[in-house]
Amino acid sequence: MGNTSLERRYTPLIILLLVAALVATLGFWAADRAAVKRGDGAIGAASAREHFQWKMITTWPKNFPGLGMAAENFADLVEVMSDGRLTVHVYGAGELVPAMEVFDAVSQGVVDAGHGAAYYWKGKVPSSVFFTSIPFGLNAQEMNGWLHYGGGLELWQEAYAPYNLVPMAGGSTGVQMAGWFNREINSIEDLKGLKMRIPGLAGEVFSAAGGTAVTIPGGELYTSIQTGVIDALEWVGPYNDQAFGFQEVARYYYYPGWHEPGSILEFVVNKDSLEALPEDLQAIVVTASRAANQDMLDEYTARNNAALQSLVDEHGVQLRRLPDDVMRALWKGTQQAMKRLVESDPMAAKVYESYRKFYRGVRNYHHISEQAYINARDKAMGDEEL
Amino acid sequence: MGNTSLERRYTPLIILLLVAALVATLGFWAADRAAVKRGDGAIGAASAREHFQWKMITTWPKNFPGLGMAAENFADLVEVMSDGRLTVHVYGAGELVPAMEVFDAVSQGVVDAGHGAAYYWKGKVPSSVFFTSIPFGLNAQEMNGWLHYGGGLELWQEAYAPYNLVPMAGGSTGVQMAGWFNREINSIEDLKGLKMRIPGLAGEVFSAAGGTAVTIPGGELYTSIQTGVIDALEWVGPYNDQAFGFQEVARYYYYPGWHEPGSILEFVVNKDSLEALPEDLQAIVVTASRAANQDMLDEYTARNNAALQSLVDEHGVQLRRLPDDVMRALWKGTQQAMKRLVESDPMAAKVYESYRKFYRGVRNYHHISEQAYINARDKAMGDEEL
Repeated sequence: MGNTSLERRYTPLIILLLVAALVATLGFWAADRAAVKRGDGAIGAASAREHFQWKMITTWPKNFPGLGMAAENFADLVEVMSDGRLTVHVYGAGELVPAMEVFDAVSQGVVDAGHGAAYYWKGKVPSSVFFTSIPFGLNAQEMNGWLHYGGGLELWQEAYAPYNLVPMAGGSTGVQMAGWFNREINSIEDLKGLKMRIPGLAGEVFSAAGGTAVTIPGGELYTSIQTGVIDALEWVGPYNDQAFGFQEVARYYYYPGWHEPGSILEFVVNKDSLEALPEDLQAIVVTASRAANQDMLDEYTARNNAALQSLVDEHGVQLRRLPDDVMRALWKGTQQAMKRLVESDPMAAKVYESYRKFYRGVRNYHHISEQAYINARDKAMGDEEL
Repeated sequence: MGNTSLERRYTPLIILLLVAALVATLGFWAADRAAVKRGDGAIGAASAREHFQWKMITTWPKNFPGLGMAAENFADLVEVMSDGRLTVHVYGAGELVPAMEVFDAVSQGVVDAGHGAAYYWKGKVPSSVFFTSIPFGLNAQEMNGWLHYGGGLELWQEAYAPYNLVPMAGGSTGVQMAGWFNREINSIEDLKGLKMRIPGLAGEVFSAAGGTAVTIPGGELYTSIQTGVIDALEWVGPYNDQAFGFQEVARYYYYPGWHEPGSILEFVVNKDSLEALPEDLQAIVVTASRAANQDMLDEYTARNNAALQSLVDEHGVQLRRLPDDVMRALWKGTQQAMKRLVESDPMAAKVYESYRKFYRGVRNYHHISEQAYINARDKAMGDEEL
């Protein structure tokens, strides 16, 4: 009303500013939409780049050589492949929960994931022994064949489904050593009264063969054999055993590892945690576990010999082979323990059928392939070396 | 000057609009920066979601069972883990370039990646034989240990660096079969004049032992042995050989596969193609190859026995073991061929030193672990079965 000239003077500026604000606002909205489209099929800008932070608990001390590195490798692979969208914080045994509570804690969703060995949960899931290792069973290559192309992994998933857990292979030690002994084993008679730390199904077998199997946590093994509480123990193999210092408190180191010929470790993931991830991150979790699974066997294969040489040459460890009659008695004990196991639990019987079928086939084939070759190599080469 | 009231009336609106524009602009800039930070170290919002399309050529027919599946598995894993940001189109041999031109085509950047076997490029890179398999050498488990924890992969990278190629392990067949023969081999005399398709270093060894090694492409093998152009051939093992139909044209199937005891296949990636990827996609490529590497061995381990049974039971194939004197002669020939190889090429000599050191250690260790166990298992079990 009479100030029109001034209104006119300001109007272009106001319009300009309104347009600028509109453009900037639209730009912000467009950038926001672009972020959504860039995302993972999730339902908004935030969730498209949603960050997930997992906790993974383990049955090993933090950064434990060999066994403990699978969880660390897994965490590293997941973080870099996901560009940091999924981070996995690894906790050693006892940091959040004790080692033997990993299964329950992941099952209940206290944490998202765990790393350990299936046969630790034998009391709860009797069939779980097949997914780690059984006496006189499959070696690492054979286990991986059964799990990934022989139906083993599907059975493992079925066995863990009631616990809201998804299992995956989590590394292998290869054939283990039969263990450390404070006296020589020259015949089956020498097992009589021998107190050995040897857990699980193998412990039952050892007791059936005349020994006395006891269960002692890893951390107490050194003192137990040093003080004579036990006469013998098994742990893993040269690379891991040397780190524990058993060469200082036991004299005889026995092979072959009849009781754990191809131990496969496990990643367990809480099903809800896994399914909360977009599809790409789920695939990253599964593939990282597969790569970490192979990586551990590669490491043991490369490092065991140097440790063995050091034990023998520098520490005076006496390397010994278990006599044939002891091996035969242990095999007989294995048949009995297996019979009891499959009669006691329908799922164990179901897994046993799959395992046994695969075992017979692959053992037959390895008679003319892996086994025939590794023996023929020695025979052809004699004392010569490549 | 006199219009102050109107100016005052508009000023808050102008300031409000200026602030709104500033906030929106800052918001847009912040969203843009966030997109960059969320991204892959790339330089803007667009490149953070940049899509890459790779071509992977192979030395196998498209979807070839076993050998050809590593490339397909790799492509699937990469696509799902990257949420489609990196797609890999796999081409069979001859679709883009002939099988034996894979190395050059990837080297020159005609395509981004390839799958095949390192020893195919022996004429160009003499040391490459060590990265696939050498006669009487490491088996699959041992090869993976050497490559990933024994310095093997680093040497492989060094050998391929002049060609702008990055190599990665790409699957394993396990111990192969010695091959198909149209007459029995009862002694070293029976090799005299025998024409066998057996390529590479093993072919040199075979010729040194009295036979005549010839090189024939895979696709012509069936006809060649059927028409008597050759008396014998080697390919892979039961699962792959049965698919080729050799049981229809050869009677004797010999083991063990002295010439290729742990063949590792290869992924090769053009270095520029790899480095053009953001860090997360590079990690996805490397980890997918590691998982595909293990997957192939798992498949062969699971499937070879059924194929062998079918060959023997349904096709009347005669399974035979190569006699000790033949194996010994082949080992002697291997020593000579190895000497010639390392004298002819400095890089081959360097790789040989690493391989030999690892070989001696792991063979020593496997005497008390893998080998001791697999033999002891048989002895303890006798004719009994799990």
